[in-house]
Amino acid sequence: MPFFDALSAVLPPGRIVRDPDVIAASSRDQAAWAPQGRAAALVRPQNPEQVRAVVAVCAEHRVPVVPRGAGTGLSGGANAVDGCVILAMEGMDRILEIDAAEQIAVVQPGVVNDRLRAAVAEHGLWYPPDPASSPWSTIGGNAATNAGGVCCVKYGVTRDYVLGLQVVTGTGELVRLGRRTRKGVAGYDLTALFVGSEGTLGVITEITVRLLRLPSGAPTTVVGAFDSLVAAGRAVAAVAASGVTPAALELVDRYCLRAVDDWKNMGLADLGDVLLLGRIDSGNEREAAELQRCFDTAGAGWSTRSTDAEEAEALFAARRLAYPALERLGPVLTEDVCVPRGLVPEMLARIEGHAKAHDVHIANIAHAGDGNLHPLIVVPAGDDDARDRAQRAFESILDDAIALGGTVTGEHGVGLLKMRGMHAELGPEVLALHRSVKAALDPAGIFNPGKVL
Amino acid sequence: MPFFDALSAVLPPGRIVRDPDVIAASSRDQAAWAPQGRAAALVRPQNPEQVRAVVAVCAEHRVPVVPRGAGTGLSGGANAVDGCVILAMEGMDRILEIDAAEQIAVVQPGVVNDRLRAAVAEHGLWYPPDPASSPWSTIGGNAATNAGGVCCVKYGVTRDYVLGLQVVTGTGELVRLGRRTRKGVAGYDLTALFVGSEGTLGVITEITVRLLRLPSGAPTTVVGAFDSLVAAGRAVAAVAASGVTPAALELVDRYCLRAVDDWKNMGLADLGDVLLLGRIDSGNEREAAELQRCFDTAGAGWSTRSTDAEEAEALFAARRLAYPALERLGPVLTEDVCVPRGLVPEMLARIEGHAKAHDVHIANIAHAGDGNLHPLIVVPAGDDDARDRAQRAFESILDDAIALGGTVTGEHGVGLLKMRGMHAELGPEVLALHRSVKAALDPAGIFNPGKVL
Repeated sequence: MPFFDALSAVLPPGRIVRDPDVIAASSRDQAAWAPQGRAAALVRPQNPEQVRAVVAVCAEHRVPVVPRGAGTGLSGGANAVDGCVILAMEGMDRILEIDAAEQIAVVQPGVVNDRLRAAVAEHGLWYPPDPASSPWSTIGGNAATNAGGVCCVKYGVTRDYVLGLQVVTGTGELVRLGRRTRKGVAGYDLTALFVGSEGTLGVITEITVRLLRLPSGAPTTVVGAFDSLVAAGRAVAAVAASGVTPAALELVDRYCLRAVDDWKNMGLADLGDVLLLGRIDSGNEREAAELQRCFDTAGAGWSTRSTDAEEAEALFAARRLAYPALERLGPVLTEDVCVPRGLVPEMLARIEGHAKAHDVHIANIAHAGDGNLHPLIVVPAGDDDARDRAQRAFESILDDAIALGGTVTGEHGVGLLKMRGMHAELGPEVLALHRSVKAALDPAGIFNPGKVL
Repeated sequence: MPFFDALSAVLPPGRIVRDPDVIAASSRDQAAWAPQGRAAALVRPQNPEQVRAVVAVCAEHRVPVVPRGAGTGLSGGANAVDGCVILAMEGMDRILEIDAAEQIAVVQPGVVNDRLRAAVAEHGLWYPPDPASSPWSTIGGNAATNAGGVCCVKYGVTRDYVLGLQVVTGTGELVRLGRRTRKGVAGYDLTALFVGSEGTLGVITEITVRLLRLPSGAPTTVVGAFDSLVAAGRAVAAVAASGVTPAALELVDRYCLRAVDDWKNMGLADLGDVLLLGRIDSGNEREAAELQRCFDTAGAGWSTRSTDAEEAEALFAARRLAYPALERLGPVLTEDVCVPRGLVPEMLARIEGHAKAHDVHIANIAHAGDGNLHPLIVVPAGDDDARDRAQRAFESILDDAIALGGTVTGEHGVGLLKMRGMHAELGPEVLALHRSVKAALDPAGIFNPGKVL
């Protein structure tokens, strides 16, 4: 049976989209620089069984499958490849279960992160992973990329909350991995293997996550303004040494502050060249004071801490607005390197060097508390030469992260943008292990081919 | 070259043991009931390169490799198989690095858990995973089995602390997996795949763990005595609903209490039929009071909470002594089922039913806070009929754990004792995925064959 006949046979009417314009609109993520291919079709499954049937047909016909959630990724992981079927999982968006006593939730992959957070909050529970995309990104996409966020420094990443998955495998079978219990070591941790595999091992059709108790009371925001990256780096080191564990510790540099000022006229750049924004969980006033003391001792020209929930949120605005403010200036090439946190100042200095050497503007947002930096390379739209220089700066920064004992991607994933960097980081023997695992679980090689590996 | 000549060629003199008595003494773990084979040799490597060379020789000659740490396992995972080389990793016991600023440690696999904890404590740091075997068991063994412990309910298991590994693969290569940074998503999470794989995918030669700050001040122990498992189960549910997160919540039943009394004459059984022992981190007096209130409201006949470090430790004695007290009575068949924590009372009732149905004594220790139960089946030494009945009770309990949505092993691993149970739990499709992964990473099938899968 021809491919499209076979596909139509397993889906209800209206679930296969072949209109090129509609397909094009769902053929890429937010990585402005990553290439995209031309998909053969977009499929909108309604349930796991339909996903299974589609994958089985694709496996038989050796048609690539590219799963996607909301398309908020920053590495090109969800970009179409030529001739592929895009599996748009957004429509599978039911919260199947919230078990308050067991502190777990079971959701379909299309559930938006913030929606899950709001739903479990009604039960006094909290789903911590908080990528900046949380108003739009889906739990399926978060799991596929092992998404991070600002609270990782204290609460960990998506992998730390995924207990179990239902997935469709490369042989077109629908299986359950992992568990619902708090502990469990029966067999290999295939759940952890699928989390962060960026759609290259199978399609996630259901996710079981563990939840924490919702913290009572609003957190405190502590802000420090510094006149140099070196001084801010000293403050980060002082926090690490102090024993305080902030729930977030973010760095925003002068390029970002100016971009936000140009947009929102907030006067942030007048405070200093670099802002550090710390968040302390409710009820730890002593820790908030200690965090501010760390900032002051390290040489903050100005510091403050919030006295109520509204102020705490307002003081985080600089961080929240930095990325959209930069996007207004032109296409942004987003880095995601992570280095040992003590080397954040050294890495920032090297980034500054690459900006000069390659004559590009590089702004920095960083999850400073865990060494995860987001250098943002901005070039004027349409300037091909600047784009080439930016590309070279991007790769140089990846190499420096590796040289400092770090990784090319802390939380965004490899996708298309960081394949060379990842290969350099892992080396040929470990890459060979990856290829063995990929071949074992996706023997037909249909899942997101040409990504990651 | 004959196998032993090839082995001798890659090791210095004295590293290969062929004396049958010495080999026999290192041919099994603490699972009294698991079968053991006859090893061809015991090898005591001194460094990762020697491990690599031994594995390469074994792969070439298709000789099974059984890695072992301190042999404290409870599932037969380290038991010799016929004709194997036992890789005794205890001698590779160097703490290679403690980086206080980054809060990580790098250790060889033979480092004993308590030794690591003591070493990092000198830097004000804490390695949380605390299996009961911590005075003897090694970090390599802990990682290979993804060991748990009593503090998991708040602080997680070994996997949550292993950032990176150095391993020897099935093709005899020495590679690094994972990272030293707090976050990282470059490639598949092969580190998590190796953690808990019980020596079936490769040999761990180095472990990088993340550390927490050492809590300041002693924890508080809260004890409640109950006249029934049902009342104790009510208390566990009340704790879950209260929002209090104890750092441990252990249950010890009347069989254990009597065994401890018979040994140490502590009068524990006079307090009640079941004890719950909770631990609250220092500085949370309100939570300690709330925990005690949960116990009292659920019907505790007696309760108390510690006022100093010494008392806190003393009140935990019932839990610490329970297992050795039972071992005095005869061979112990140790279960490790984990169920949704709300079903702990139901699971305990079913266990009681199986004890009656099969006419065996079953004592219970449980990590009640996370639903991980350790029914301990004790039979008189040499009573073959009782042993058969115990075996049947063991399997029935596994089936009930699965029926309640749980797992056959929460933290001890599959080894030899839980292979049938694990197969029943995972089902044929997921087992096939396991076999694919195993074949991909251990193509010669030399690593711990006949275990787990």
